[in-house]
Amino acid sequence: MKITMAHGSGGQETSRLIDEIFARAFNDPVLSRMEDAAVVPGAGRLALTTDSFVVDPLFFPGGDIGRLCICGTVNDLLMSGATPRYLTCGFILEQGADIEDLQKIARSMADTAHEAGIAIVAGDTKVVEGKGNVYINTAGVGFVPDGIDISAANCREGDAVLLSGNLGDHHATILSTRMNIKNDIKSDCAPLGDMVHNLLAANIKVRSLRDVTRGGLATVLNEFARASHCCIELNEADIPVSVEVQSLCAILGLDPYTMGNEGKMIAVVAQEDAESALHILRHSKYGENAYIVGAVTHEKNASVLLHTALGGTRVLSGLTGEGLPRIC
Amino acid sequence: MKITMAHGSGGQETSRLIDEIFARAFNDPVLSRMEDAAVVPGAGRLALTTDSFVVDPLFFPGGDIGRLCICGTVNDLLMSGATPRYLTCGFILEQGADIEDLQKIARSMADTAHEAGIAIVAGDTKVVEGKGNVYINTAGVGFVPDGIDISAANCREGDAVLLSGNLGDHHATILSTRMNIKNDIKSDCAPLGDMVHNLLAANIKVRSLRDVTRGGLATVLNEFARASHCCIELNEADIPVSVEVQSLCAILGLDPYTMGNEGKMIAVVAQEDAESALHILRHSKYGENAYIVGAVTHEKNASVLLHTALGGTRVLSGLTGEGLPRIC
Repeated sequence: MKITMAHGSGGQETSRLIDEIFARAFNDPVLSRMEDAAVVPGAGRLALTTDSFVVDPLFFPGGDIGRLCICGTVNDLLMSGATPRYLTCGFILEQGADIEDLQKIARSMADTAHEAGIAIVAGDTKVVEGKGNVYINTAGVGFVPDGIDISAANCREGDAVLLSGNLGDHHATILSTRMNIKNDIKSDCAPLGDMVHNLLAANIKVRSLRDVTRGGLATVLNEFARASHCCIELNEADIPVSVEVQSLCAILGLDPYTMGNEGKMIAVVAQEDAESALHILRHSKYGENAYIVGAVTHEKNASVLLHTALGGTRVLSGLTGEGLPRIC
Repeated sequence: MKITMAHGSGGQETSRLIDEIFARAFNDPVLSRMEDAAVVPGAGRLALTTDSFVVDPLFFPGGDIGRLCICGTVNDLLMSGATPRYLTCGFILEQGADIEDLQKIARSMADTAHEAGIAIVAGDTKVVEGKGNVYINTAGVGFVPDGIDISAANCREGDAVLLSGNLGDHHATILSTRMNIKNDIKSDCAPLGDMVHNLLAANIKVRSLRDVTRGGLATVLNEFARASHCCIELNEADIPVSVEVQSLCAILGLDPYTMGNEGKMIAVVAQEDAESALHILRHSKYGENAYIVGAVTHEKNASVLLHTALGGTRVLSGLTGEGLPRIC
């Protein structure tokens, strides 16, 4: 079955689409009251975030737009130190979108939300003309426990920089799928709650956290360097990239440092906690290939330096220009 | 200047677009920290809502997509009895969208948010291929004061049904603009905080509130009747529709009861409070043409009846089929 403009009218067809696909998949008591706004209990400091997902193709090895749109928003909340709690989703469907695809996407969203421990409590659906594209916005609310102060501006000289695993998997997957290149690369798309929770529960002195998405490692670390007025130095030899992704990068001239990921994070922690943090990451879900990849040095010199495997040093700039369109 | 795919890369062009257009227009201290999630203070029960806006054209008499996307989400929060507090916005921009238009839209969002007393605290921008369309998702968070229990399921026999003003203005505006029909009709697009606040502050026994958007009055009241297991009877003679909109409806065969609005609400209140509620609405911003339009009768007979101006009675069904595409 295909989406028609009537599915976006706000009338009976919209209501049937919501009942039969989204409400059924998400099955949340707050959502199923179907009021215009979801009312939920809450207290303390809130974290809010929003992200739209326009990935092409909708389904790819290791995930789909449904898993992606939950992980993206959950991870954004986690990076502020918040416990993710409530999520809203807005669908913009182009006429001709496949309803069976939507069902699969909704199920994937429900499964991922369950894994991440977040409740989908409000939604909206609009239909526009077009070629059957599916766009999803998710907004998330979490609660920040007292005493947590994690920010891009908190890096200090001497801190250690940890990366939770291999770079470039998601980017390489989307590109390979679109170019019809056969390989075994899978998207890393995952919710990172286990590793963040474990770091905080162990009282690791966490300065800055960021999931490494569009723009890649280079863009995130340049933002940290700028916000913290410091320099970040990386050792290329310590930065994990799988052999398959390395080969693809070599063939296509890609740079793993600006490639997007959907299940990786950077954690900047106090030097004295570096080894414990590494141990925690490696024993957390999705963190088995974590490494200490660099350190914060020379405050007030806001840049990122890469010590290459060949013994040279170069400035690592953030992404400029196009990057890979519609990667998330 | 036109939007290019590079504006969606997550790199420097995205960052410049956000800095120069959105951050400048919204100018919120939480937003301008530019972390992935906004952390805000909060307590008590939360209300959450989300809505995507795909209106075509982007600018129309009485408003634009920017004013619309703030009003829509603010009004959804208000209808649960919440005080709107924080808003996130996600932009999906088709390549070729006009950057000057975006600037106007961002300013309009900022002005409307200011009027409505809500802070824009998080945002996201994606770019996709296409014809220059602009889509905006807004998600909102509000706080629900203790003791408030407003729900579509709370209508009781004897309650009065109030409508805050003329039906059909927004729908008629969009249609006239698209068909290039010249008239003086303007969208009613407005935030309804003043009237909701005044009703609650006066301790009016408010059972149900709903903004009358896509699907129109008929769809909202059918939802109330179904959720409350009651019948709602309306007097056609009491339902305000402007002469211009009436004429347009007559010419084009439109039904004002299923036409969309963006600054009107239905309030169901206890019978003894009906006259005070009407007085309050008429003295609130955007409520000067409010009327008592009907009553809740015969519980358990879930339907909506319209007593026509000619003395007949007909069942008023919710919207089925297409309605007007991309009205909001």
